[in-house]
Formats: sequence, C-alpha cells, structure tokens
Amino acid sequence: MQYKKVCNCLVGIFILMNARGQSVYKDLTKYVNPLIGTGAVDKNSLSGSNFPGPTLPFSMVQLSPDTEDAPDDPASGYDYYAKTIVGFSHTHLSGTGVSDLFDILLIPTNGRLYMSPGTVDKKKPGFRSTFSHQDEQAIPGYYQVKLTDYGINAELTSSAHVGMHRYTFSEKDSSRIIIDLDHSLNKKRTYWSCKILDAQIKVIAPNAIEGYRIITGWANMRKVYFHIEFSKPFKDVLFANGNGAPKLNTILNGNALKAAAEFDTKPGEQILSKVALSAVSIENARENMQAEIPNWDFDQVKQNAHDIWEKELDKIAIDGTDSQKTIFYTALYHAFTQPNNIADVNGDYMATDYTIHKAEDKTHYSTFSIWDTYRAANPLYSLIAPKKSGAFINSMLRQYQTYGFLPIWQLWGEENYCMIGNHSIPVIVDAVMKGIGGFNVDSAYEAVKNSSLRDHQGSPFSVWEKYHYIPENIQSQSVSIALEMSFDDWCVAQFAKHLGKTADYNYFMQRAQYYKNLHNKQTNFFQAKNSDGQWLPKFNPLDYGGNGGSPFTEGNAWQYYWYVPQDVPSLIDITGGKEAFTQKLDTFFTLVDKSGETNGNASGFIGQYAHGNEPSHHVTYLYDYAGQPWKTQYYVSKVLREQYTTASSGYSGNDDCGQMSAWYIFSSMGFYPVNPASGVYAIGSPILKSATITLPNGKIFTIKTKNVSDQNFYIEKIKLNGKDYPYSYITQTVLDQGGTMEFEMGNKPNKKRAINTNAYPLEWGYNTK
Amino acid sequence: MQYKKVCNCLVGIFILMNARGQSVYKDLTKYVNPLIGTGAVDKNSLSGSNFPGPTLPFSMVQLSPDTEDAPDDPASGYDYYAKTIVGFSHTHLSGTGVSDLFDILLIPTNGRLYMSPGTVDKKKPGFRSTFSHQDEQAIPGYYQVKLTDYGINAELTSSAHVGMHRYTFSEKDSSRIIIDLDHSLNKKRTYWSCKILDAQIKVIAPNAIEGYRIITGWANMRKVYFHIEFSKPFKDVLFANGNGAPKLNTILNGNALKAAAEFDTKPGEQILSKVALSAVSIENARENMQAEIPNWDFDQVKQNAHDIWEKELDKIAIDGTDSQKTIFYTALYHAFTQPNNIADVNGDYMATDYTIHKAEDKTHYSTFSIWDTYRAANPLYSLIAPKKSGAFINSMLRQYQTYGFLPIWQLWGEENYCMIGNHSIPVIVDAVMKGIGGFNVDSAYEAVKNSSLRDHQGSPFSVWEKYHYIPENIQSQSVSIALEMSFDDWCVAQFAKHLGKTADYNYFMQRAQYYKNLHNKQTNFFQAKNSDGQWLPKFNPLDYGGNGGSPFTEGNAWQYYWYVPQDVPSLIDITGGKEAFTQKLDTFFTLVDKSGETNGNASGFIGQYAHGNEPSHHVTYLYDYAGQPWKTQYYVSKVLREQYTTASSGYSGNDDCGQMSAWYIFSSMGFYPVNPASGVYAIGSPILKSATITLPNGKIFTIKTKNVSDQNFYIEKIKLNGKDYPYSYITQTVLDQGGTMEFEMGNKPNKKRAINTNAYPLEWGYNTK
Repeated sequence: MQYKKVCNCLVGIFILMNARGQSVYKDLTKYVNPLIGTGAVDKNSLSGSNFPGPTLPFSMVQLSPDTEDAPDDPASGYDYYAKTIVGFSHTHLSGTGVSDLFDILLIPTNGRLYMSPGTVDKKKPGFRSTFSHQDEQAIPGYYQVKLTDYGINAELTSSAHVGMHRYTFSEKDSSRIIIDLDHSLNKKRTYWSCKILDAQIKVIAPNAIEGYRIITGWANMRKVYFHIEFSKPFKDVLFANGNGAPKLNTILNGNALKAAAEFDTKPGEQILSKVALSAVSIENARENMQAEIPNWDFDQVKQNAHDIWEKELDKIAIDGTDSQKTIFYTALYHAFTQPNNIADVNGDYMATDYTIHKAEDKTHYSTFSIWDTYRAANPLYSLIAPKKSGAFINSMLRQYQTYGFLPIWQLWGEENYCMIGNHSIPVIVDAVMKGIGGFNVDSAYEAVKNSSLRDHQGSPFSVWEKYHYIPENIQSQSVSIALEMSFDDWCVAQFAKHLGKTADYNYFMQRAQYYKNLHNKQTNFFQAKNSDGQWLPKFNPLDYGGNGGSPFTEGNAWQYYWYVPQDVPSLIDITGGKEAFTQKLDTFFTLVDKSGETNGNASGFIGQYAHGNEPSHHVTYLYDYAGQPWKTQYYVSKVLREQYTTASSGYSGNDDCGQMSAWYIFSSMGFYPVNPASGVYAIGSPILKSATITLPNGKIFTIKTKNVSDQNFYIEKIKLNGKDYPYSYITQTVLDQGGTMEFEMGNKPNKKRAINTNAYPLEWGYNTK
Repeated sequence: MQYKKVCNCLVGIFILMNARGQSVYKDLTKYVNPLIGTGAVDKNSLSGSNFPGPTLPFSMVQLSPDTEDAPDDPASGYDYYAKTIVGFSHTHLSGTGVSDLFDILLIPTNGRLYMSPGTVDKKKPGFRSTFSHQDEQAIPGYYQVKLTDYGINAELTSSAHVGMHRYTFSEKDSSRIIIDLDHSLNKKRTYWSCKILDAQIKVIAPNAIEGYRIITGWANMRKVYFHIEFSKPFKDVLFANGNGAPKLNTILNGNALKAAAEFDTKPGEQILSKVALSAVSIENARENMQAEIPNWDFDQVKQNAHDIWEKELDKIAIDGTDSQKTIFYTALYHAFTQPNNIADVNGDYMATDYTIHKAEDKTHYSTFSIWDTYRAANPLYSLIAPKKSGAFINSMLRQYQTYGFLPIWQLWGEENYCMIGNHSIPVIVDAVMKGIGGFNVDSAYEAVKNSSLRDHQGSPFSVWEKYHYIPENIQSQSVSIALEMSFDDWCVAQFAKHLGKTADYNYFMQRAQYYKNLHNKQTNFFQAKNSDGQWLPKFNPLDYGGNGGSPFTEGNAWQYYWYVPQDVPSLIDITGGKEAFTQKLDTFFTLVDKSGETNGNASGFIGQYAHGNEPSHHVTYLYDYAGQPWKTQYYVSKVLREQYTTASSGYSGNDDCGQMSAWYIFSSMGFYPVNPASGVYAIGSPILKSATITLPNGKIFTIKTKNVSDQNFYIEKIKLNGKDYPYSYITQTVLDQGGTMEFEMGNKPNKKRAINTNAYPLEWGYNTK
C-alpha cells in the first residue's frame, strides 16, 4: 500500500460518497470496537483472540498491548480479564489459536524501575503496570491506556509499517522507555520451539535506536529489522542482555536484549516515538518510516488511520440497530485485519525460500489462516475487495513457485502446515470464477493442480491414490483429511472444466468421490479405516480429535458428518434421503451429550453444533438443501443473536483471522457460501434492516428486510427486483446483475414457500457455465 | 578466487618457477598428507581434528568423508579410527574443538538399501559403509575411498564452491546416490542447540536436484543453498522426510529431508555428480557451478586443484628430510585451509546482520578461530600471503561495521563468542605494521579502538575500567581474560602511537598494565580476585579451568603465568628477576603432577607445558628473554621432533584452524612470534636444512642450517648475510631486507653466545619506529 498517496487523498475529507453516489457522513469507524473478541465467554471457551491496538487494513504493523511477558493464550497477546500490561509490541495475530510475532515491545516506565547490573532478574516479571478498562480506549487506528503503576498515559497509532507512541508522563522524574527484543511467544512451550537466534540494539543518533532480531517460532525463521526515533533526545540509554547489563555501549548483540532510553521529564510532558519495521533490512525500516510517518504529528497519523478505515468499511453500507452495526463493522474490521503485507514500501520482501525479492505492486501478503478463512472470509474479500483478493492470490502463487505447493497456513511468508486440506484451492477457484483478475489464471491452474498431486505434510496424495481413502494408520486425522481432500479435488475439477481440461476434470472428479469410502452405512457416520480396509474399533461419534492422533480434526464425527459442501444432495442420499438427513440434523442440533468432548476449540454449542470452531460453520444452512429452510432460518438466527455480542466476549470462539467475523457479515445479510467455490449462497435469516454491497463490476446489490425482529426471523417471502423469489439460494450470477432483494420476515415458518426451494440448481452459481 | 582464470593459467604447467626464478618441478603437494591430524595420539588427547577430503585454499567447499551420522568429536567429522563412513558432506571445520557445518551429505549405495515408506528408521544408523585405510587415498584436491559394503569406489575433488564426486559402481544393480539434508552436528548436544529450521529438495531436471537448508547450530543461522547435477539422468528420485516417504513428488520441504537418485548401472560404470553451494541463493549456487565446473572432466578439476595448491605451497621452499617436508607442507596446507571465502563467484555474501551484500573483490572470508590463530597462523598469512591477509582483515572490518566490534570467533560470517580476548586486534596491528595494505587503516583503527571500549560478551570493559582487574564474581575466566585483555590493550596502544594518537596511546598503555593487579606476590602466580579485592581462597596452580566457571580458560595458573607476551621483561621483574624466572620455567617444564587436570584441551605435556593447546605455544621461547636460549632450543626442538609426526595422530592436540600447524612452520625454520604484534621473533631451534621465504616486498629471506640433526639442536652460532649474528631474536625489519641467515648447530649449548642475546631491543621489530 502506498500509504502517503492514500493520505493525500483523504486528509480532511469527512464527507464521503456512499455507494450510490450520495454524499453522506457515515462515521462507520465509530461502530468498530476493537475490544470485541478480546475476552472469553466463560472458562470453557476461547476468546476471539483479537487484539485491541491500532492497525491499518492488511498492514504489517499491528501495534497492541500485551498482557503477558510470554503470551500463549490468547494468541493475540491481550486478555480482557488481565490486570496488567507488559508493553506494546508491533506485530500480532488476530484470532488464531497459536501465538507468534510480538516483535519489538515498548513500555514507558518511570524512575522507580531500573535496569542496571544485578537488578534485571529473568525469574521475576518484567516491567508491567496495572491498568483499568475505565482508563482505556480502542478505536480503529488508535488505542489509549493509563498505565496506573507509572502514572503514564500511553497512546498508540500506526501506519502500514510504522507504529507511533505518545506517552504522557505525569511525574517529574527520570522516565524510561524500555525496548524489549526478548519479548516473544512462550519459549517454554514445547509444541513450537521458540528461540531468538540473534538480536541487536544499536544507538545511532541522540534520539534514534535501531536493530533486529532473528527468531524461530511458529514461523520457521523470521528476520525483523527495526528503526526507532524519539521526539526528544534521550539522556542516556541503558542496556541489558539477559542478566548482564553492559555499561560502555552504543551497540549490543545477543539473544535476550533490552534497552532503556532515559529522559528527564516534567509533569505532563509528552514523549513520542515511532517504530518502523522491515522483514528485509534496517535500511528498509528507515525508508518505511520516511515514506509513511516522516514527521511527529500523532493526531494526523491517527486521522489518516481513521480515514483509511472509513473508506474500507464503506464497502458494505448497512442499516440496523446500533448493536448490529457495532457487531457488523467490528467484524468487517477484524476480517480486514489480515492477511498482512510483509513487503516494504519499496516492494522488498522475503520469499518462502528466505531470499529477498521485489514485488512490482509493492505487496507480498501473508498470514493465510486458510483452513478457517476459505469458508467465508476469502469469499468476502473476492466479493467486496477484489483487488486485494487478487494480490493475496498472487502472494500465494509465489509460495507455490518456490515451495512447490500453495499455502496451507502461511505465516510471515512461510508454511507452517497448521490444520489440514489445501484450501488455497477453493480460494483461487472462487476468485477465478468471479473473474476478479490480478493474477495469471494459467499459472494459478498449474499451482492448483500440482498442489493436488505432490505429497506433502498432511496431504499424502499417493496414499489417497492407492487406497481411495486415507488410512488412519498411515495418516492421522484421516476422516477429516479425506472429507476436505474430496472437496478440494472437486474444486480442482471445476477449474479444469473451466479451462477445458477434460482429462483433469475426470481425474479429480473421481478423487472427489473418495470421501464416500469412509461412510459407514451401519452407523451412518464417516469413520476411519486402517490400511487393511477394516473400520477402526470403538467408534463413538462424540469422541473428539485435536490436531493429530485421532481421525478427526478439532471436532468429532458428528461435526464432520456434514463436510460434503460440494455435493450436499449426495450426502442426503447416503444419509438415507431428505427425511433421514433432516432428522440427523435435528439430532445434531439437540444432542447435548458432551461426554466425548476433548478439544478446546469446540465452543458455542447448540447440541453438537459448535459455532466456536469452523467445521460447524456451514451446517445451519444444510436444512435448505433438504426442504426445511425454516430450520436453517431458526438456527442461523439463533447463532446471530446469541453468539455475537458487543461485549469483549463477543465471539464464541477464536475469530481465526476473520472467519468468525465473515460468517456474521454474510449471515446477517441473509446468505452464506456453504460451498465457497460454487457461486451458490444458501439463504439464511437476515437480521439487518438493509445492506448494500458494491460489487467488483461496479453494480450495487441491496438487501432489505421488512418486519425483522428478534421474534420475526422466519422468511415469509422474498422479492428480487420486485418479483417473487421462491428459492432458498442466490447465486453470484444474481448478485453480479445488481438489484434489490427484499425479505419479508415473520414469526412463523412459511413451510409452503419451502416447497419451491428445492428446484433451484445447487451446483453452480457463477456466470461461467 | 577467480578459479577459472587460475585454471587457464595453470593448465598443463607442470614446470613451476620457484621463488628465485629458477625453473624447477617441485611437486610439493606430494608431501601433503591430509590424513595427518585425523587421529588422536591416545585416548587422553584430542586429534588434530583435521579432515582428509579435498579443498582449495581458503575455499567455501571442503568436501570430506564423515564417519558419524551426527558428528561431534572430532569436529572435522572424520575419525581415523572409525570403521565406517556415512557419506561425504561439503563443508567442514579443520581443527576446531566444536563441530558445525557438514552441509549436503552425499553417499552412493546400491540396491541392497532402500528408502521407502516404513524403511527409513531414524533410530537405526543411516546409510553407512565400512572402509579400510588400505583402500583410501588423500592428497590435496583429491580423496578416494572404497565403500566396502557397497563395492563402490568413491572419488572426490573440488573447486572453490563446487564439490565433484566420481562413483564407480561394481555391480549390475539399481544404484542410488543419497542426498542427506538432515546430516548435521549432533542435535542432542545441548551446549549448542542445533535445529534444521527448514529445508527443501527439488528435482529440476532429469539429472539435476537443488534446494537449501536453514539451520541453527554453532553458527546462529545459516542458509545453505545447493545445486546438484549428475552425469547421467536418474531413473527415479525417492524422497524421505523423517520417517515419512512421500511418493508423488518432485519437491519436498521439511526438517529431516533425504532424497535418493536412482540409476541403473553396469559393473564398472561411473556416475559423476557436482554439488555447488551458496550462502545466498540457489541461483548463485548454479552460477558458481557454471563459473567453476561447467563440464564433467573430473581429472581436470583434480589437476586444477593440484596446480593451485602447488602454487600456494611454493610460498616457502624448504629442504629437509622427507618426513620434515611432509609435516611442513601438510602444516602449510592445513594453515591455508581456512579462513574460508563464503562469498559467491559474483561477490554476493551474507553479512553479520543477515542481509545480502556484494563484495567488490568477490571475497568475504569467515571461520576466524582467532584466539588460536592470532598467535602464529595470522602472522604467517601476513608474512607469506599478504593479499589474502588484507582480504581477511577487510572481512573482519565488515563485522565491526554491522556488529559493533571485531570478530572473536566468527563462523559463516557470524560471531559465536567462542574463547576470550579480542585478538582480531593483534592480527590487524601486525598487518598494519607490516604494511601489507588491502584495507583502510583509519577504519581499522576505529574498529580496533571501539572493540576495546564497548562492553560485550566476555569483554566487560566497564568492569576493567572500574576495578583495574576482572573480578571473578563478575566475569568468569577472569585471570585469563585480564591477561589477554592487557595484551590486546598494548596492541591498541601501539596502533595509536603509530597514528600519532598520543592520548589513546597513554590510555591503552595504562590499561595494558592492569594484569599486574592479579599477580600475587605471595604465591608468585596470577590469581583471581573477587570484586571485594580479596584473592579467591583455595588456590591451586594445578587446577584447570575450561570455558567458564573458573578463573582460567582451558588451562591452569601454571600455563597462564607466562601470558605477558607484550612485556616479558616486566614479567621477569615481577617474577623476581631472571634467575627466579628461569627457575620457574624449569619447574614448569618438569612438574609432572597432573592432579588438578580437568580440561580435555590440554595435551602434549612436557611437565605443565601442554603443546596440545594454545596457552602454552609461546612459552618454550621465553628462556631467550632471560639469558638461557639453549633451554628454548632444547624444548622447541623436543616439541618439533616429538609432537609432530607423519602419522594420522601427527598433532598432539586440535590443529585449531592451523595454529598448531603454524607453530611448526615458524619453529621448524627457527623463529616464532612470541608477541605476534611486535615484529620481533624469538629464535628457537631450526630443524630444516633450509627454508626460503618470498616476502611481501618481493625480497627473499633464506634460512640455512649446518650440522642439524636429532642430536644437534643447539645453536652454535648464527650468521646473517655472512656476518656474525649474536642475538636470540630477529625482527620483521631484518626479514624485510631479505638475505640469508645461517645457523650452525651442535649437540651442546653454546652458553657464551647467550650472553649477547639480551642486548637486543625486544619491544619492536617493525620498520615503523
């Protein structure tokens, strides 16, 4: 992003043009509450794992308070229920279950805390202060908190590559701003071994410090270079390396580095600092700062951030209650918090093979939590932010070029194999079919095809080819993998068909059927077999798997039963027809037995349905496919109204890089991409008064509701452009034409209407065939 | 090194010009036996830790057999007493006590060993074959061994960045060449945590494989990219990642990667492979191969290596027994095995801050084992290879530029803080005083001065300034550090004086005296104090320290007593005069009590003298300074004749990157740089018939001996250019003038001659003052 250019356009423009060309002051950012998702509903569930600090859309720097010295859970580093803040670090993950990043922590302190030989004790907590939510404010592009122990007011804002801090010191004192390079994810956690391989802090001017750290953690190896400037020359800089505190220094190298810039302050004096990052070099970090925040106007940077978010949020204009607007725009904000551009302003980035390259469009996006986001977040990007979506796919293709297959879970440009499946494939296929452009379709097909042929961790295609299922004794999580692999294969087949590659189409369509080989007619569940072809004994559909050691991934056989988004009619068939299917769904949503629960990711329960984790996300919509759309309406509405709130515990589970948010955005408007690479959206139960989407082709699609309320969540009837619309689905083709869809809502199911919904072509909703 | 150019010059030239312009075929390489230093004298001592495989002088690739899957001791990877070879890896350390590198292991096998799902078992030994020294040959630039288990003859040669393998298969069989990226230093060793952070193997053509590994070990973080070509297309390539063996692949990523290129072979068929490395990128590895070994002429590459070594070895022409020539030229070969140019042919290299830069002269040298080599190896480089020495110093200065101080122990461009002191300083000061050029003297002074002012690991200058000694309770190894710091300070002072910086001179000369504050008059030893100024209790001069936890570094108080090379007269004074000093030396060389021995680096004992480790290396020469040069002659001769042999156990301890070798080179010619930054060489006991050195200024200095034999090791008299030379020292000034020094040797001390030796100016031997 060329931040400066954007700034020049927006500075001072408070009256924005809305999608229909009407000039109206919206102030959408006022509805965003970054504290939503920072606390858990209860001790049995996960928080959204969101962070409250400032970020620009899709930016490298995400500057936020950390409440732990060695953050672990929540992975965002900020727990709403924590009593203390340890400082403000410049990179974060939003909504993940695994922690990493937390680069370059700053914390202001006063003279009561010293860093000198003998006083730095690793066993004791570091520099931390109590804080109160009463003295805390979080809005897009700005965060403020009073650090009670030090009497210091801390304010944060940021540009794409630079964090900006404004600290107001309340005492006449010798004040210090600590720079902590040893702050990282929990190094004692053995699941990922985190180690700082090398680091440097260097004083280069009376008000400037720079350096780097090389770190291995969840990402294999990251190089984080930084350049820091202060608005006032420091009196002195103190250094610490672990327990040692060298004295005669302007430069320090080691693995556990801290520095303290010391200032004489008057009561009320403000000291500002700017921290620029780069994954490439100190020089680039300096260039990033010069390009984005050359001066010291904190309020202007804050205003720029506000204006950029205003523009971004305006992509969907909604009407509804204030609570709905808060939940909706916060969700949109969270969805646009990642992927993150890790390229510098000059386009330099570190590729997957750890070499430095230059991106022509100055962007290289990473943080692809694709197992989560392919479901609804990526379809949302390709619907309302197609240029970004094209750039994301270009970045994914770069991994293919050096790494041999598309991202599974990519962090800081590197694959970490988190979760299962190869769901860059549906993301790309959806984008191709929507025609968003911005990447080479033939290269994309090569990447998609080879990613589906080459064995790699979690994706043993040779085993898939040999057995026509995944034997659990060869590859754990076999049932989940087989189901999701079948879906990806179906996606490859559609792409092949689109390009006229019939042999490939037939090949992958055959593989896409293999999931059926794990359907046990006796139990009517998908179950695991070993390589001898026998079902694994002691099957209990309530038993959960985590991330290995069980046939199921972060779920149980109940939750994974529904994972045939590419061919729900076949799933209905093998279940025993529509009645059996809806009965099984009824049981799913009402069976409260949790005797088998073992995975912490499952939360937000409605029977066995667990909205807090992704495997359930499409299941409420499956009634549509079996002639009982009113039950879809009932459960979708229930989730929308009960599992999304304006509280810090507003999500019933990890936001997972925006997927929980994207579910709300689609569902609150009334539709959801059950198969995110089909162009077909199942209709649920809209709760907003209206929603207007500006489509990639410039057309406007508006959803309106009549009589909607907490009680009126059933669809009485739908009109599309004034004509009766009898279906329970809409397609991308319908959206692309623009227009208005009106929902008349009521408090009773309209079962007559449901009869017609079945006639709709379920397979394909793009303009392509 | 521009290898191709050298090749063009040398191809077919077997008649070389010697230093005196006479045309004579020397064949010096025939005296080099790379197997010397690969075995230990006995179980109580260390081997030289040298490797037998091919290398060019100072080159990146050092291709050699490894006898362990996870090499640890010897650090070279090759133990002469081992029965099996696990393969041939492309990077090695020569003579160190700590292991690392071992990149990209190849081993040829036959069809009896498979790599397929289930058969790769990490718990069992990998692919290894027995071998016999009868079927083994090692000469400069060439190594051959029969892998008995497989009936395969393996031959190795190399250029600067490329290893070349020629495997002759004896059976009609399906043969395999394994490429092992998981071969590394012992990962279970906790002292350095070794971990492969990421790796890739990729088949890019029917006969080509490439990839990389990112690894943390003794070096903080290395990126090793490779490109491999085979002379014949492979039938298939099998892959393994840990215990998994993916099938459908041309590319593999992971942490424990192996690939097996499979070939149908006829009996006697040869398959060649070329392996190019780069620390920067795969592209650069390819470019390195194209530049150095574009074709498949193994014998030509071998010949080129031979010719390059011939030219390098010819820098000193000696006459003596065949054994002496073997020991001498092998020592010269070992001394020129490192430092290593880690830049690519295009000049790209990874700097100390992990960014990529381009070197104008296409070289960036690393592997600086400076605590060892500053004593004699670096003075040797600056004496006979000044251009290289200048380039080494340029590379050292690059560390200063990004890291803030000069190398202590630099591996692969990165500081690892091994050992103590800042002995890049004497290396630079010696080079400046010799006027070798090739680096900026003012920049060098800045680096030397700041490296002596900024606190860093093992060098707490603030503590030095505060206490005027190093308190053991603040910094362990305090006595060794204080003694060596005093020496380095003296060196900085000389450099300051040379540049007319009087204030700096005075400042550092004052610090250079601080060692005296640890001399305990009661015991007449250097002893440790704590910060309270009291001597540490329970002092026993026989007690050894290792690398921390004791006041002494890899030695005891006896061995460190002599560490005042910059001012032996003062040491004599504080010892109580010459008689007390020589008596103490007599005791040192005869006290056989090893009750306190605890450090494995100490070996090669003569009393408390331990020639197997560096702290002792100058001590035999100290009798010269106290009027008893015949005792120097006695002990130097004893070490030369007893502790250097032509056997695999030819060194009495680790060669330490050529320091043990350099001791022999100097001492066998009759002189040694006791203070390696003074330009003064103490005369010992030459054992060669003659030695001719071509000096940087083009002049020739020849040493000749008369009547030298195993019994005749005492100097009867010395003539310099035909005139009587009554001193026990020569200086750089004398050498620089060229000429001939003749030693007449006898079997009895000439004690009369010794009277005059004292009158010589001991402090300074350069032309500079």
